[in-house]
Amino acid sequence: MWQSPSMSYQPPMSNDEFRRAGHEMIDWIADYWERVEDLPVLSQVEPGDIRASLPTSPPESGEAWSDIMSDVDELIMPGITHWQSPNFFAYFPANASPPSVLGELMSAGLGVQGMLWATSPACTELETHMMDWMIDLCGLPDRFRSGGAGGGVIQDSASSGALVAILAARERTAGQWRWDELVAYSSEHAHSSMIKGCKIAGLTEDQVRSIPSDPTTHAMDAQALRRAMEEDIVAGRRPFFVQATAGTTSSTAFDPVHEIADICKEYVAWLHLDGAFAGAAAVAPEFRFVNDGLERVDSYTFNPHKWLLTNFDCSMFFVADRQPMIAALSVLPEYLRNAASDEGAVVDYRDWQIPLGRRFRALKLWFVIRTHGAEGLANFVRSHVDMAKNFEAKIEAHPQYEIVAPTPLSLVTFRHVGGDADNERIRDAINNGGESYITHTKLNGQTVLRLAIGAVRTEQRHVDATYNLLAALA
Amino acid sequence: MWQSPSMSYQPPMSNDEFRRAGHEMIDWIADYWERVEDLPVLSQVEPGDIRASLPTSPPESGEAWSDIMSDVDELIMPGITHWQSPNFFAYFPANASPPSVLGELMSAGLGVQGMLWATSPACTELETHMMDWMIDLCGLPDRFRSGGAGGGVIQDSASSGALVAILAARERTAGQWRWDELVAYSSEHAHSSMIKGCKIAGLTEDQVRSIPSDPTTHAMDAQALRRAMEEDIVAGRRPFFVQATAGTTSSTAFDPVHEIADICKEYVAWLHLDGAFAGAAAVAPEFRFVNDGLERVDSYTFNPHKWLLTNFDCSMFFVADRQPMIAALSVLPEYLRNAASDEGAVVDYRDWQIPLGRRFRALKLWFVIRTHGAEGLANFVRSHVDMAKNFEAKIEAHPQYEIVAPTPLSLVTFRHVGGDADNERIRDAINNGGESYITHTKLNGQTVLRLAIGAVRTEQRHVDATYNLLAALA
Repeated sequence: MWQSPSMSYQPPMSNDEFRRAGHEMIDWIADYWERVEDLPVLSQVEPGDIRASLPTSPPESGEAWSDIMSDVDELIMPGITHWQSPNFFAYFPANASPPSVLGELMSAGLGVQGMLWATSPACTELETHMMDWMIDLCGLPDRFRSGGAGGGVIQDSASSGALVAILAARERTAGQWRWDELVAYSSEHAHSSMIKGCKIAGLTEDQVRSIPSDPTTHAMDAQALRRAMEEDIVAGRRPFFVQATAGTTSSTAFDPVHEIADICKEYVAWLHLDGAFAGAAAVAPEFRFVNDGLERVDSYTFNPHKWLLTNFDCSMFFVADRQPMIAALSVLPEYLRNAASDEGAVVDYRDWQIPLGRRFRALKLWFVIRTHGAEGLANFVRSHVDMAKNFEAKIEAHPQYEIVAPTPLSLVTFRHVGGDADNERIRDAINNGGESYITHTKLNGQTVLRLAIGAVRTEQRHVDATYNLLAALA
Repeated sequence: MWQSPSMSYQPPMSNDEFRRAGHEMIDWIADYWERVEDLPVLSQVEPGDIRASLPTSPPESGEAWSDIMSDVDELIMPGITHWQSPNFFAYFPANASPPSVLGELMSAGLGVQGMLWATSPACTELETHMMDWMIDLCGLPDRFRSGGAGGGVIQDSASSGALVAILAARERTAGQWRWDELVAYSSEHAHSSMIKGCKIAGLTEDQVRSIPSDPTTHAMDAQALRRAMEEDIVAGRRPFFVQATAGTTSSTAFDPVHEIADICKEYVAWLHLDGAFAGAAAVAPEFRFVNDGLERVDSYTFNPHKWLLTNFDCSMFFVADRQPMIAALSVLPEYLRNAASDEGAVVDYRDWQIPLGRRFRALKLWFVIRTHGAEGLANFVRSHVDMAKNFEAKIEAHPQYEIVAPTPLSLVTFRHVGGDADNERIRDAINNGGESYITHTKLNGQTVLRLAIGAVRTEQRHVDATYNLLAALA
């Protein structure tokens, strides 16, 4: 017979203690956002420093909350690279606005699973609704609306969206082609997630083609794409997937989507458009060039967690025909069966993504959209494009620097005329000084500096301060 | 020349407003946890109800925070299935304890990206440290420690962990076997994520084998596994991956890991162990039978978000040899290169997972472990096993119900003796009544009810109340 254990579970933090600690945490975050401007943007610790400060073994008994919070300040914070600093200009930004953080908090407190409609109908329906709202906000094609054959879903990242697109595209060829006969294409400047997605899906390196780009615009050379596809067809292979990019990571170059769509239509290849950063700009009507050709693609992704005030993870993934995606991802065991799903009356988002479980991510997007309104969202991206244009003009006017690619939005790519070593020196001096953080890329074989404007708290004065650093280091 | 836009961005929620709204949100969550016991566990809305209550189009201007919170209460809450209810006994639980919610909140406020060590060293190092702590807490094999050839990482889910394991296993065969020659195996009761992972990785249905289980224990029949592998070898195929389960979803059955490991060793197949729910029990030394054979597996996963007080997503993934995993997932574009990575002195977790980006999930696990201590964590799982044993004894004593599988931990599988229709009727009556929520599965072809105990706030009285409902419906 079972013997009850001698000790029962006592929650170490009561609801009242949660209220106290929670209020403190909210204030800690607000304080952090107020002081983050003055912290060194790039963490200056050495590998192993953080771990060396932590106890080797976990505690046997519970510890006081105040000790934990002290350790956050003393042991963890020196190891943080401050993505929420207004002086963060590296990679692309990771937005975390106040209403989105409250949405993430509410989602954690509710702690619901959205794998099936039935496991929390509001989690699924608010998400579908937000994806339809995003179509209105960004002027996206109606073919992505939930009422038709397509639809939208929140993914954790554009990487996962690309993978889902690859899997749906592969599914469309099932029964007609062996999977080792398939070939995928993207520009040499496409995000690495496309290659990673192909690797995951079981394509080997010789099934993925990197198409050259125009040396001035850095956009994909559509004729080179056509030639590559034709060569593969002649060799008995099957072009099945093309990833075009609306705003590359290196320089926000825009691939010629219409030309690429013509080619994809001719050869029946799935066309996925990656607008991870730039797509958000479409909330301002004057930047809707980022949507150019979108009505002709099979799938599309962009990330509000990059440039639309919503904390990671929140990536929009739209598809024109959801059937091949669902066929690629659906597995239905008995323990997940339920009446609503069996009747086909509902969306079960588990079949639209890689994992089974999912958080209630639509809440934070709903909070961001409602607190800002369409107008507020548009002004957010406008303000960054404005800062970028000002910065670009100053760089152009500086004798030691040159702009190396167009600045369609808020990423400025530039270089010191002295050569790669000078640019690396300048980058390291800026980043090690802690006042600003920029990253580099390669364009036409040269090291190029990137200033990506898009953090929630960045103002003109922060961009000016970084310009002044660059001028001083020139 | 660029014209500055006429309107600049005005954040709709200032830091001070965030403090006020944040304190309210913390109290809203604490209030919710206090009243959730009395809410109908399974949402009673019909498909489309939630969407019908929302405005068709997004707002043009920002809205007041108080209106948004009213809408949460009035429009969203009726569509929530309450996973945090103490009367939630469906599927497996989704834990969200107070300290873990504060960890999620801090992570959102910091808004850092942990894709590379350099992009926030503390995010990576605290995660590595927590994975090593978990080895101590659960008595896991040293081969998973970060100091050796293996290591641990937080995945979003056990599904993603299974996929990463499949990819690493496939990588080990690269250059020797074509990928359409590979075959994967799991028991008929393995989680569907294994089949989904294989589909994603490019295996077709005829490359995945479902191995029969023992009709009494529901554990994989190891001899049937051996026969299936031998048949495939004779047919020129390559057995490359076996997923064993420590605690199946249907009945927490434990596959015979030692026997399976012998077979995997003989045929050089990767052995992945899925302990998604049950693995957490190892925090109590008397339940370490869940680790049986673990020192012989190639990879292992279990979910603190299921049964260790940490809100979704927080899935532990351990690997004995990290090299094939990194080879399968690493792609290094220029814009992600940095000195620390180039020197090989650090872990870059982007190469341990499907997406590129990642949140600072180690914070919430750190908060949970430190507030509870080893002792508090052990008492948490003990209390649930105790409730399950009490419930099991009552069901056994009831003339109309029978226990249908062993209860090694806190999931009780049982059925009404009247047959499938009676069990479905009872399940629906309970779930539609709103006082409790249970789900079903099939064992030996029969519909079986599952009572999964593990929610953070469940006490003996909640289990007793569900037993009383069952008795009244018998």
